[in-house]
Amino acid sequence: MQRIYLDNNATTMVDPKVAELMSRFQTQEFGNPNSIHFFGSETHPFLRTGMNQLYSGINASDDDDIIVTGCATESNNTVLKAIYFDLIRTGQKKEIITSQVEHPSVAHTCKFLESIGVKVTYLPVNSIGIVEPQELKNHINDETALVSIMWANNETGMIFPVKEYVDICKERGVLFHTDAVQAIGKIGVDLQNVPVDILTFSAHKFHGPKGIGGLYIRKGLSLTPLLHGGEQMGGKRSGTLNVAGIVGMGLAMELAVNALEYENSRVKELRNKLEDALLTIEDVLVLGDREHRTPNTILISVKGVEGESMLWDLSKNGIGASTGSACASEELEASPIMSAIGAGNELAHTGIRISLSRFTTEEEINYVIEEFPKAVERLRSISSTYAYSPSGKK
Amino acid sequence: MQRIYLDNNATTMVDPKVAELMSRFQTQEFGNPNSIHFFGSETHPFLRTGMNQLYSGINASDDDDIIVTGCATESNNTVLKAIYFDLIRTGQKKEIITSQVEHPSVAHTCKFLESIGVKVTYLPVNSIGIVEPQELKNHINDETALVSIMWANNETGMIFPVKEYVDICKERGVLFHTDAVQAIGKIGVDLQNVPVDILTFSAHKFHGPKGIGGLYIRKGLSLTPLLHGGEQMGGKRSGTLNVAGIVGMGLAMELAVNALEYENSRVKELRNKLEDALLTIEDVLVLGDREHRTPNTILISVKGVEGESMLWDLSKNGIGASTGSACASEELEASPIMSAIGAGNELAHTGIRISLSRFTTEEEINYVIEEFPKAVERLRSISSTYAYSPSGKK
Repeated sequence: MQRIYLDNNATTMVDPKVAELMSRFQTQEFGNPNSIHFFGSETHPFLRTGMNQLYSGINASDDDDIIVTGCATESNNTVLKAIYFDLIRTGQKKEIITSQVEHPSVAHTCKFLESIGVKVTYLPVNSIGIVEPQELKNHINDETALVSIMWANNETGMIFPVKEYVDICKERGVLFHTDAVQAIGKIGVDLQNVPVDILTFSAHKFHGPKGIGGLYIRKGLSLTPLLHGGEQMGGKRSGTLNVAGIVGMGLAMELAVNALEYENSRVKELRNKLEDALLTIEDVLVLGDREHRTPNTILISVKGVEGESMLWDLSKNGIGASTGSACASEELEASPIMSAIGAGNELAHTGIRISLSRFTTEEEINYVIEEFPKAVERLRSISSTYAYSPSGKK
Repeated sequence: MQRIYLDNNATTMVDPKVAELMSRFQTQEFGNPNSIHFFGSETHPFLRTGMNQLYSGINASDDDDIIVTGCATESNNTVLKAIYFDLIRTGQKKEIITSQVEHPSVAHTCKFLESIGVKVTYLPVNSIGIVEPQELKNHINDETALVSIMWANNETGMIFPVKEYVDICKERGVLFHTDAVQAIGKIGVDLQNVPVDILTFSAHKFHGPKGIGGLYIRKGLSLTPLLHGGEQMGGKRSGTLNVAGIVGMGLAMELAVNALEYENSRVKELRNKLEDALLTIEDVLVLGDREHRTPNTILISVKGVEGESMLWDLSKNGIGASTGSACASEELEASPIMSAIGAGNELAHTGIRISLSRFTTEEEINYVIEEFPKAVERLRSISSTYAYSPSGKK
């Protein structure tokens, strides 16, 4: 059977170079870096390399902090709950501003904070799924503790004008956090150029391992830890250092950043080829324009076809795609982004997300170009919401 | 150079069988388990096996919860902070009872909770480093939200009478949590026999990978998550499932539980052989009796020798040991357990922890028996606190 993986916004294959490097830290250099003996200290050069790769991948400065977490969800929880403990619980500030289309790890943490009395404002997106800077300008105020808006959207791939948000926040002296999980490895993330205060990333979205992520914190900022304990990461995030994970995430970051040019030429080309082909199918709609979108992503709405059914059909034919965020895809809820951009109920369940990677080949794309329309035809022929006739006339 | 690893209470080598099993989930079955397509669903049987191995390793019942976390530190933070949000912040209860010798992930989290107004009582230990059940009985009261006492101590290996704590808590209707990180894989942990409510464990302490741990939660109990987000783990702990980690931790648990008999015969025998030999050195002291101690651990105090210096000397000679918890060993603080058991300042900095594993060989132990006394002699000869003469007379 074909094994065509087009769900790279959900997770990615670990780059074989990364997997190979990691393996020695399981059974050979397995020491605890905090140990004084040589089993501990022999891991230090590798950890330093890994951390340096992270700093340079996002162009952080040496005196900024990057703390390693267990996942982007932990990173996002760390920021939002620290803001609660440090600024809101203490009475200095009252509100968190975010968007209506954040990942559940931001959205659900905000819901939790609301349940304990925090005011949260959810900014809407425009018709292509982006939060207009003007919306932020309209809502930011002296009681705002934090603005948290993603760098790129997981479902549509739309790239948000983060630099403009930063400018607005700087002018008002408000902290700005961005979940850059979907940006890193797809577009340039340069923190000297776009000086966000706090930034979340996740290794397994850029061909690193699962179970490890990071949180960039600009120098001088201090956040109450989510994980209290030993002195690892300077006490900012406790827990025995995951050496294999850190080393792997570092190399994955370096490889991903080195591949950015390829991502924005060849991967984009393949994506465009696929998108052009899919757009020849009748009654389909691709969300957002290509220029504001990560180079690997297509969110296509196929009228009359339930997204879930489409996924099953594609999967049966060797193609892995998604309805939207895998984090919610066990549920049959309408994708929040589809609702947010005002897609009616009819369209809300019809989104299929196709996300490529640097490992995607042209042969794979050609196969999808052949199979996708057949799946649409099969499903429309049994659709109760799509008036279909074999002649193609409705 | 020799590479003799005797710091298994800090971390362990990943069992080569575990490492081998894990590797395929990096570059082959790398899907996100929450994805609907076959790349996601093909991971499910492996995840089920891994989870079943965890349940059966601690004899949990099917309707209990085991949630997978990023580390034991996350597990401990989850419990303590959930108790804060669920029982203390709501005004139902006021106090957490713990011991003076917990791991920093409990101790420092309690300090944080104190800083936001939670009452925490730290029970003392007796002369062999154990919390007497009577101490708990004396302090537990109607305002107690949670009792959290470790199953076995990381520094001394002393095994705590957890069953008695459970009985006391059950009688008073108070929740009981135990950090069993140092117990699992060393002694039997059977939750039908010792029905704790909540239990923490960590894969890398039983020859599993770093970066993954677990939290057992008895059926019917519900804890506010530490990581809010997607619906993974039934919403109890969000974040993309670390498939390689879960599968690896499961197998590591099974192998560790299967090796319990070996641990309590052969490993104990080797430990005793080493301990007997070390006790022939003048002016040394081993903490706690062997019967109440995990079979792999020795905490030895060498009069007149700074623990750190001893570690450096041993390390130079190919032996990795520890002063106590690796989590604090970058600091020169006196080990909390040494202070807690009333060791004077003079003894407080002299502890060397030696911790074996099922991979420790007799040749290695013989080598240590030869080298350890030489190290002691070298360091005492330059000690300012130990009046030493070449004849052995003081």
